[in-house]
Amino acid sequence: MVEEEGWVKLRIILVGFGVVGQNLVKLLLSRADDIYLRYGMKPRLVATVDSKGVAVSQSGLDLQRLLEVKRFYGTVAAYHKDVQGCESADIDGENYGRCMVKEVIREIDAEVLVEATPTNLNDGEPGLSNITTAIKHGRNVVTVNKGPLALAMPSLLELAEYNGVMLRFSGTVGGGTPILEFAKHCLRGDRILSFKGILNGTTNYILSMMEDGLTFDEALNDARSKGYAEADPSLDIDGFDAAAKLVIMANWIMGMKVTMRDVRFKGIRDVRLEDILEAKKHGKVIKLIASCDESRRLKVEPMGIDKNEPLCVNGTLNAVTFTSEHSGELTVIGKGAGGMETASAILRDLIEVREAMSMGIGLNRS
Amino acid sequence: MVEEEGWVKLRIILVGFGVVGQNLVKLLLSRADDIYLRYGMKPRLVATVDSKGVAVSQSGLDLQRLLEVKRFYGTVAAYHKDVQGCESADIDGENYGRCMVKEVIREIDAEVLVEATPTNLNDGEPGLSNITTAIKHGRNVVTVNKGPLALAMPSLLELAEYNGVMLRFSGTVGGGTPILEFAKHCLRGDRILSFKGILNGTTNYILSMMEDGLTFDEALNDARSKGYAEADPSLDIDGFDAAAKLVIMANWIMGMKVTMRDVRFKGIRDVRLEDILEAKKHGKVIKLIASCDESRRLKVEPMGIDKNEPLCVNGTLNAVTFTSEHSGELTVIGKGAGGMETASAILRDLIEVREAMSMGIGLNRS
Repeated sequence: MVEEEGWVKLRIILVGFGVVGQNLVKLLLSRADDIYLRYGMKPRLVATVDSKGVAVSQSGLDLQRLLEVKRFYGTVAAYHKDVQGCESADIDGENYGRCMVKEVIREIDAEVLVEATPTNLNDGEPGLSNITTAIKHGRNVVTVNKGPLALAMPSLLELAEYNGVMLRFSGTVGGGTPILEFAKHCLRGDRILSFKGILNGTTNYILSMMEDGLTFDEALNDARSKGYAEADPSLDIDGFDAAAKLVIMANWIMGMKVTMRDVRFKGIRDVRLEDILEAKKHGKVIKLIASCDESRRLKVEPMGIDKNEPLCVNGTLNAVTFTSEHSGELTVIGKGAGGMETASAILRDLIEVREAMSMGIGLNRS
Repeated sequence: MVEEEGWVKLRIILVGFGVVGQNLVKLLLSRADDIYLRYGMKPRLVATVDSKGVAVSQSGLDLQRLLEVKRFYGTVAAYHKDVQGCESADIDGENYGRCMVKEVIREIDAEVLVEATPTNLNDGEPGLSNITTAIKHGRNVVTVNKGPLALAMPSLLELAEYNGVMLRFSGTVGGGTPILEFAKHCLRGDRILSFKGILNGTTNYILSMMEDGLTFDEALNDARSKGYAEADPSLDIDGFDAAAKLVIMANWIMGMKVTMRDVRFKGIRDVRLEDILEAKKHGKVIKLIASCDESRRLKVEPMGIDKNEPLCVNGTLNAVTFTSEHSGELTVIGKGAGGMETASAILRDLIEVREAMSMGIGLNRS
């Protein structure tokens, strides 16, 4: 156990400093005393990497300064422009700013990598390389990046196990809503036979707007104007995002060994206003449903569901209904995204990693 | 650690052998291999007590026989009428059948008491005496009986802590729906600021029927005919049951030290069809809501809630919405009752007790 003044060290390398990364730093700042009081944990950010550079301090970055530097200069690399509060003796920030992320992950002493780079469902990069590098160097990994998991979750879990470290990913499904935890920890003794869920808030918002009479294009534009949809909304609209989350749930909750290739999926691009009105006549609402049935077939597709089902939520909400052997149908509903929400999921994972470390797990550092 | 052939012993005294108790035995029978495989646990029922007598076997009761005896003779005491399969040398079943429950709890060697006698909100008996006797004799307790907790939860938790044993009660709120676990384990790192819920299925069924146009009396009769309401439905109708569950949630989730006396509650007896129709005009539905607000005031009362809120479930469903500091509103929905559902909650608690025991907690047996 790596103890220091009675508490377990938790040194973090944060790669990706967008909305989620910055909210994590805000959370660590505002909750520092409380986190120590409740969980005996003093997380210390020793390196932060964004697309333009790196900020490093083995004794812990000044979080307030890090946020300010990012806001004023657009990159954490500027942290080292003024050496105040940072170790310049053994680590040259300017040099780190130019060196590769992989080198930071390999060379900076840390217990955990927090991976928060954008999701890429083509080849999973740069997240995939970041995660495998960290694991191979004996670091625990907390990721909110769906790409690497969607494409290679079975092998990543195996790699983590082989290297004696933890790989956690609460924030990849449901944002701050603890959907994975609920299924994995709250139903022990029972067995989940199947599940179905609304896993993508953007498409759910669009379908909810169409329910109110907008056409697909009008609803998409409305979602764009509210910031719910990207300039290229294909990840959401065509079901990729929901399929990636389904893969993560299938591996983690059902113990399956699957990737995106094992999901049959279809988005909402072809859903017409007429389909929605027709469904309405029968008390149904069309939703983009990701499902794992009793035969463990994985599907994402628009489906009519009963409007009185607990699963039938509107707006950007996410919802999952699990069918269990003994307790029947259980539904969890919450916001599916959001910077602070997702950051709180990272904190949850960090607490789990820290507790495992205090029991001697996940300490296999090289 | 009490080890035997490599596994941790888990000897159970079951007091109360009604629907829930019998379903627990069915569950232990049907899932024995799976429970051992997944949790390394071989629970052994060493004594079962019902209102008419006791069945005892220190080497473990024959579960199939126990169920049959109960079905044919109406009491487990008949288990000892035929000594086949039971130890008659050191324990005389007929004698046990006549002796007090407290003596069984004190004298039979066991790690856990499962308390499943009916809820009594006047003085908590016989559950309260059973639980305190067990705790004082160093036995862990798993209870599905709300009475003792509603009336004395703070002191019972203290007593358990003082005696180094565990007191668990998953099945008291939400039946098989893991509402307490969700709040306690899935939101670590975040903070629950307040919550509100539909905690009583019977009143929710009655209000749902009134929504469809029945009067209160018609709806109550309908609930009776379906077996949802007791002959004396006061526990449900007047809000006692929901208040008891609210007390348990407040103590366990919010760390409050409260009993029934601290809840302001009102049932649904005075809800008129007109109130429901008037609410409907404004897109609202009247539900019996149990709540703990940000100032930690505890209330149970009929309230109009928005029909599109995730909390707004129909029929006998239960639902709770938690408001968290970082992750927003999170809702859990499921069946709130049922013999097998509640038995699965007991199994969940037994697994937790067993795991704590294997780490040296809850082993403080005299």
